[in-house]
Amino acid sequence: MIRVLVWNEFKHEKEKEAVAAIYPNGIHRTIADFLQCEDISVKTATLDDENCGITKEVLDETDVIIWWGHAAHKHVPDEVAALVRDAVHSGMGAIFLHSAHHSKPFKLLMGTPCNLCWRESGDSEYVWVTDPSHPITEGIDRAIYLPHEETYGEPFSIPNPDKVLFVGSYAGGEAFRSGCLFQRGNGQIFYFQPGHETFPTFHIPEVQTVIRNAVRFVAPRYRAEIACPHVRHFGDPEGYVIIKK
Amino acid sequence: MIRVLVWNEFKHEKEKEAVAAIYPNGIHRTIADFLQCEDISVKTATLDDENCGITKEVLDETDVIIWWGHAAHKHVPDEVAALVRDAVHSGMGAIFLHSAHHSKPFKLLMGTPCNLCWRESGDSEYVWVTDPSHPITEGIDRAIYLPHEETYGEPFSIPNPDKVLFVGSYAGGEAFRSGCLFQRGNGQIFYFQPGHETFPTFHIPEVQTVIRNAVRFVAPRYRAEIACPHVRHFGDPEGYVIIKK
Amino acid sequence: MIRVLVWNEFKHEKEKEAVAAIYPNGIHRTIADFLQCEDISVKTATLDDENCGITKEVLDETDVIIWWGHAAHKHVPDEVAALVRDAVHSGMGAIFLHSAHHSKPFKLLMGTPCNLCWRESGDSEYVWVTDPSHPITEGIDRAIYLPHEETYGEPFSIPNPDKVLFVGSYAGGEAFRSGCLFQRGNGQIFYFQPGHETFPTFHIPEVQTVIRNAVRFVAPRYRAEIACPHVRHFGDPEGYVIIKK
Amino acid sequence: MIRVLVWNEFKHEKEKEAVAAIYPNGIHRTIADFLQCEDISVKTATLDDENCGITKEVLDETDVIIWWGHAAHKHVPDEVAALVRDAVHSGMGAIFLHSAHHSKPFKLLMGTPCNLCWRESGDSEYVWVTDPSHPITEGIDRAIYLPHEETYGEPFSIPNPDKVLFVGSYAGGEAFRSGCLFQRGNGQIFYFQPGHETFPTFHIPEVQTVIRNAVRFVAPRYRAEIACPHVRHFGDPEGYVIIKK
Repeated sequence: MIRVLVWNEFKHEKEKEAVAAIYPNGIHRTIADFLQCEDISVKTATLDDENCGITKEVLDETDVIIWWGHAAHKHVPDEVAALVRDAVHSGMGAIFLHSAHHSKPFKLLMGTPCNLCWRESGDSEYVWVTDPSHPITEGIDRAIYLPHEETYGEPFSIPNPDKVLFVGSYAGGEAFRSGCLFQRGNGQIFYFQPGHETFPTFHIPEVQTVIRNAVRFVAPRYRAEIACPHVRHFGDPEGYVIIKK
Repeated sequence: MIRVLVWNEFKHEKEKEAVAAIYPNGIHRTIADFLQCEDISVKTATLDDENCGITKEVLDETDVIIWWGHAAHKHVPDEVAALVRDAVHSGMGAIFLHSAHHSKPFKLLMGTPCNLCWRESGDSEYVWVTDPSHPITEGIDRAIYLPHEETYGEPFSIPNPDKVLFVGSYAGGEAFRSGCLFQRGNGQIFYFQPGHETFPTFHIPEVQTVIRNAVRFVAPRYRAEIACPHVRHFGDPEGYVIIKK
Repeated sequence: MIRVLVWNEFKHEKEKEAVAAIYPNGIHRTIADFLQCEDISVKTATLDDENCGITKEVLDETDVIIWWGHAAHKHVPDEVAALVRDAVHSGMGAIFLHSAHHSKPFKLLMGTPCNLCWRESGDSEYVWVTDPSHPITEGIDRAIYLPHEETYGEPFSIPNPDKVLFVGSYAGGEAFRSGCLFQRGNGQIFYFQPGHETFPTFHIPEVQTVIRNAVRFVAPRYRAEIACPHVRHFGDPEGYVIIKK
Repeated sequence: MIRVLVWNEFKHEKEKEAVAAIYPNGIHRTIADFLQCEDISVKTATLDDENCGITKEVLDETDVIIWWGHAAHKHVPDEVAALVRDAVHSGMGAIFLHSAHHSKPFKLLMGTPCNLCWRESGDSEYVWVTDPSHPITEGIDRAIYLPHEETYGEPFSIPNPDKVLFVGSYAGGEAFRSGCLFQRGNGQIFYFQPGHETFPTFHIPEVQTVIRNAVRFVAPRYRAEIACPHVRHFGDPEGYVIIKK
């Protein structure tokens, strides 16, 4: 059973009627609902929860965190962002959606500004699969069609990804590296560009498929804190220090 | 002085009036003419030249080869393709343009089919810079606009590139990794997608800028055949065998 | 059930008593025997089999090929090497062991000479894990100790690997990228350096663990020939051509 | 002229006689002295300087920063580390030496703990070149021999490097990815493992050559703050916003 924590800023849904109409219980609930299945159990947390709903204990019980944030990135305490970063280092998987490119945990893990160019025009977008053999693209045809999305454009200031899995193109002409994989410590990270709050992107079956695939892919294969041990010489009768259990 | 050899299949220009109107002396001459400058000297060779104009001696005197081919890939002898591959291994730079994704030397160097999806509709294309700090994108604003290009689409079956420098988007909706860097042996390789023969792509100043930048970037910093030496033990009084001069 | 084909040149074992003493039925049988288990079924093939025991039909029924070769690389017909390459492109996994760095299929897939420096001194070696979270290193402590191995040294002329999983160090002082992952087309490739025929390397439990892990990791998640389709415009009433099922 | 700033913690040299004997004016002065040449001008700064000798103005006038630190990482204010990180994003090159793997700016740029295993035994080390064609390895034979170094061992918890340029092996048996390249934003980063304060590593000519080569390689080719602009639609009569220049 993969234990997922869907974290959502949960501001737009409470403040803008148009957003509430699409995600009446919040983006987190929509994601939780389509993810919940035989091998995936889901909890949610939001900005207004105590400590953002995130403690070391919570993350120790989380296999994969999914993060959606936009307008309130700066209201996430630095300590919370550091907890998420550290849990990824220890092996927790992480999926950052859309405007979470600017979330504190993502920027801490990337080590770059994660800036990009953007327009809120509601362009249509095709999100193209670059590698049909990857587990995250399973069940997706050549492309996912999104009738409307916020437009993101290059340059996207991320480190060279371990793998670019999707490239998006917008009716207005932009192209974007829309699906990117990274490893940080023992944890796998997937960034996925679709998901603006004013469009029903998370109701699109293929978007749900990608996120479900990604949950299974980034779920930890191994989990341990990363140590920095003073090791003994091989010649030492005690041998060298074992750092894997 | 960087010594460039522009290789062109040179078939379409002789067989199709529309192509001849754009490149009256062949694509190779157009490329040669805009490249020639203080630090770049250019020669050309074509399929109909003896041995395709390519011998080991010619390549030994070549710093960067530029390759354009399309309909006649199979008429390039395997031995010629192998000579190009081996020269890249020794350090020669190589730039493969547009339909040269299917040329024998490119496929030998990639180790993959290098297939892609394609349409000949004359869509317009934006070719976007992912990394404004790279020498190959110097002088290019956010994107290059091409009024008409053949449409290439993902999946593009290449190995994970060392760097994706450009992503293209077409009016018809496709996206493509349009500029990719690879190293093979001591040689640098740049694949650049623009350049269909029925459009005046190589007359566009920004396209010329990218190719000129790429020539300077892939020009060899070091050139030596790659050996597989039987080395001595360090304890050997003669020391270990030196393989760099 | 993962269907493995272990291919072995099977020359040294028949010609050298010292090798036969270690691998009386051939390296392929030793590997087959330790791999065979509930989820892995194993067949073997050797150079002296008709067509090296390799046809398109055989590879279509193979999920993972394991390759060991050394002195007789050149006796593998080019057509056989091309069949292996093409099957990897379609998704078959491949594991190349030790001196298979110079095998025809590996070189075709890498696009480089795959040269290295070498000594046959019987140095001891430590093979170190760089990423304890990777499925291929599961069950391995910080390092595998090999009492004797042929010494391989850098530079190893391979393309930049998708991931370096092991780095080896030898008593004589050399270091080597001993475990490397690559993707070519839909297929995953793992190169693993241990395995000289004059030492009982394949009898070492941790070496067996790595190879078993690797079989499970490179086993195809998706298998399809890589096409190069002429696609239709999206505006076309028939839509665009589907290339994934 | 490449403007280098060598930053040194400068504690050990003042507190331990054995270190002072090797680097009487500090590691920073030794590095400054061998770097200074026709195309490289060098300044230095240390922990005890006001604000560590680092302000935005200082970094704006710096092309490449070189960082050595060990025991006092935590005494570098977070604000100073953030200034260095941001300058790298804008294009400043950075070279982190030896125990600077644990410095605040390096960890911010990597997004990982950058832990490793270590022993202070004074083992000898060979640092092997993996790519003889790279500008940073120019002038280095197959390996650099260090009579004594602190031993660093894998796993080294860094992100997958853009390129592993050196692998080290120690007399005690460890192997390590000793030279690694990364890009963050517009800036190039080189990590180089040799340089323990109790050994005269920075007096070894080949070590000096690598650092000098690295200065030239990571020197900025382009420098600009990374923006996140709200861009206009292409259809807009004003065109799209230009973000370069």
